[in-house]
Amino acid sequence: MRQLYRHSFELLTDLYQLTMAYGYWKSGSTDKEAVFHLFFRRNPFGGGYAVASGLEFVVQMLREYRFRDHDLAFLADLKGNDDQPMFEAAFLEELRTMRFQCDIDAVPEGTVVFAHEPLLRVIGPIMQCQLLETALLNIVNFQTLIATKASRVCFAAGDDPVLEFGLRRAQGIDGALTASRAAYIGGCAATSNVLAGKLFGIPVKGTHAHSWIMSFDSEPEAFEAYAAAMPNNCVFLVDTYDTIDGVRNAVQTGLKLRKQGHQMVGIRLDSGDLSSLSSTARRILDEAGFEQAAIVASNDLDEKLISNLKKRGAAINVWGVGTRLVTGDGQPALGGVYKLAAIRRPGDNWSYRVKLSEQSVKSSTPGVLQIRRFKNGHKATADMIYSQQEGIPDESCMIDPVDSTQRHPIDDSETWDDLLVPIFRLGQCVYDLPNIAAIRKRCAEQLNSFHTGIKQNSHPHQYPVGLEAGLHALQAQLIMDARRTES
Amino acid sequence: MRQLYRHSFELLTDLYQLTMAYGYWKSGSTDKEAVFHLFFRRNPFGGGYAVASGLEFVVQMLREYRFRDHDLAFLADLKGNDDQPMFEAAFLEELRTMRFQCDIDAVPEGTVVFAHEPLLRVIGPIMQCQLLETALLNIVNFQTLIATKASRVCFAAGDDPVLEFGLRRAQGIDGALTASRAAYIGGCAATSNVLAGKLFGIPVKGTHAHSWIMSFDSEPEAFEAYAAAMPNNCVFLVDTYDTIDGVRNAVQTGLKLRKQGHQMVGIRLDSGDLSSLSSTARRILDEAGFEQAAIVASNDLDEKLISNLKKRGAAINVWGVGTRLVTGDGQPALGGVYKLAAIRRPGDNWSYRVKLSEQSVKSSTPGVLQIRRFKNGHKATADMIYSQQEGIPDESCMIDPVDSTQRHPIDDSETWDDLLVPIFRLGQCVYDLPNIAAIRKRCAEQLNSFHTGIKQNSHPHQYPVGLEAGLHALQAQLIMDARRTES
Repeated sequence: MRQLYRHSFELLTDLYQLTMAYGYWKSGSTDKEAVFHLFFRRNPFGGGYAVASGLEFVVQMLREYRFRDHDLAFLADLKGNDDQPMFEAAFLEELRTMRFQCDIDAVPEGTVVFAHEPLLRVIGPIMQCQLLETALLNIVNFQTLIATKASRVCFAAGDDPVLEFGLRRAQGIDGALTASRAAYIGGCAATSNVLAGKLFGIPVKGTHAHSWIMSFDSEPEAFEAYAAAMPNNCVFLVDTYDTIDGVRNAVQTGLKLRKQGHQMVGIRLDSGDLSSLSSTARRILDEAGFEQAAIVASNDLDEKLISNLKKRGAAINVWGVGTRLVTGDGQPALGGVYKLAAIRRPGDNWSYRVKLSEQSVKSSTPGVLQIRRFKNGHKATADMIYSQQEGIPDESCMIDPVDSTQRHPIDDSETWDDLLVPIFRLGQCVYDLPNIAAIRKRCAEQLNSFHTGIKQNSHPHQYPVGLEAGLHALQAQLIMDARRTES
Repeated sequence: MRQLYRHSFELLTDLYQLTMAYGYWKSGSTDKEAVFHLFFRRNPFGGGYAVASGLEFVVQMLREYRFRDHDLAFLADLKGNDDQPMFEAAFLEELRTMRFQCDIDAVPEGTVVFAHEPLLRVIGPIMQCQLLETALLNIVNFQTLIATKASRVCFAAGDDPVLEFGLRRAQGIDGALTASRAAYIGGCAATSNVLAGKLFGIPVKGTHAHSWIMSFDSEPEAFEAYAAAMPNNCVFLVDTYDTIDGVRNAVQTGLKLRKQGHQMVGIRLDSGDLSSLSSTARRILDEAGFEQAAIVASNDLDEKLISNLKKRGAAINVWGVGTRLVTGDGQPALGGVYKLAAIRRPGDNWSYRVKLSEQSVKSSTPGVLQIRRFKNGHKATADMIYSQQEGIPDESCMIDPVDSTQRHPIDDSETWDDLLVPIFRLGQCVYDLPNIAAIRKRCAEQLNSFHTGIKQNSHPHQYPVGLEAGLHALQAQLIMDARRTES
């Protein structure tokens, strides 16, 4: 993958990460080590799972992590409320010489994950862990959201290919580019976005727009001109004036193409009642001997509309999905968080930490966490979150992360995998980044390893995810201790 | 503004723009000139207006518009359905030597605009107009969406400052960066995003997170350590354990700061019932002599929640708004389109074009459009869309763009402005880009020039926007002609 940005991203952070870093430095706590976990609290879109994505961007950013002089000059100019500099020069010098030295473990891209599971675990000097927080969240939140959305859209489309057409309405330039990549990982077959195709190695698709038709004096003339120019890439957009007339005009051009030894690929519908229009179009195409011609549909599609059109028997076999896919329509942000779970001075044992909060769902899990996925054959049966510091996990039972009265037994499991794998050790990358084809394949295999009920787009089955019994006891104890201290 | 990207953006386009360009080239139509308008069909978020944004990025992109060898090498490798190259080498050579030569007119950033009004007008060789479409839409759609959302949030907050905290959950890296810029234009006072601050000259704000508190053995210890490090930037986050205890601890630290000659800036609430917690916090702060201390609130805020909290008498005077602002929650895409309005061979008159569509709201307006804003004193009274080709516009009456039975008289108007101004002429930039302070000021002045009813966040008054009578007649005629041809 090529570099997208001219800018280094050390300053791609909330100011409070820098003021906290300054605080650690001023209070002599730069040697404190911390454990942070990145996780989300609810599966997105009311679904039963998410597809992890974004790790490659994290690796790319961290390989070059270093404060540049122009960054430090900007920080030197910031002022507090007394109009005095916010940061001392010696602190900026500390930043200048700082080298990234954290350990990072993460679930590989394309992995199916669930609420409360750590997607990323960062261990290292607390200042560094903190400075990374915002960029890690930005990258992982959005790309995971879109890979998940794409897998939902593709689930609705069944065996039909889904093309991602979102560039024009995506949230910014890399809101489009990284969405194209995540959508491909999540199961889309191609993108319209040429730059995404080039940067990430994704197939690109496209033929012509309404403006092509309108730039000629008539629709037949426009179709013929297109076919003459590009006989090997003909999908005719038929709804510029009247859709059914458009289909008939496409057929006429298709017949001429055929005489010249070419095949019309299909037609595209972009407005109106896609169900009835596609059925009529199918009949017209079939009667003219174009049984193989595809009917592509677009126009504000999403997983719900696709399911609905399929239920109504629409004769659509390729789905162009844009805006609602790349913007995560319905839930435009994942809501991932990054929470401190343990802290220590060098040589000490970890001291575990929890956050309480006025809202109990916002509490955090202490420990140095790992996810163990239990399997029976190739089917995933349950995920257990456990702390690697606490010895061999108790596999007899696990406790729901939100509702401790709910217990999940782990039975009928034969094998397990631990999902977090080493990415950085002491700041050095130890992970071979897979190519996008391998990531996309992993996603498909992962989705296959779950029961269909879990993948339903609405009212899915709940896949069992729980805290290891010892970890749950530790969390409960810490929460009670914290409440006692405060009251 | 600094360059964000390492990549050139000639390939930041849908593939169909390139296949159409190829079609124009193959069919000998490269000399055809076209007029395209970029507009949206519905004011976003159910509101009464939008705030145009993104033009500076458009200018930046077009100043460097040129196909590079590595771009062309990628295009040369693309294949059609017969596995033969999609594009001939001579076409790629045409792209290599092509230089941007369009005329572009646009409404300045920070201008209040309405559905159906052209935000951007592009006139030039049809191939070039077409190649630009997707990137123009990507840039203008998103930044206009977020500037609008920010103005809504700020309207709800009244005179209280709004801080933009969205980086961690924004849609990608420039989904965050450009959102921070648009939010500032729309009225936000500052951002947490340090890189946005550096790149765009926006004030940055931030103090500390829950993790700061959790990294110490107790909350008072954490507050004191922060105050010792950064006495001139103290906003204490009080809800890590128990909010009211947190306020009391902040007061203790504030008293010590005061003895040292510093002022506590305030406290921040990030969970729970912000209305009752803020009232209690206000009382505790006031009783301790901290009447000037700000109460900052955050936690999934948006314009509705802010209005609601204000109605309930919440004692909040600074609003930290993140996710829902930068993702355009409620409508994560503007839905802007870019439509062909006229075409000609060199030396000919413009031949006007309309698109019909199965959905009449998706029809387009022909002409070479301009927006005339009528005013009475400094108050805007009506906007008329007219075609500059058709002589002096008829000012007596205008017709609603969607419902032609609705007529808007233009009365009590003294003066007018034409909103589209020249940006490029024959590919050369002729526009002095204003700095961000000037853009933000323009936005505030523009908003001031509209009646409050139009700015209501729900059920706003409809500001009168219409087609000039002659333009409406032209559009109606073209639609009837097109229907006749097709039937």
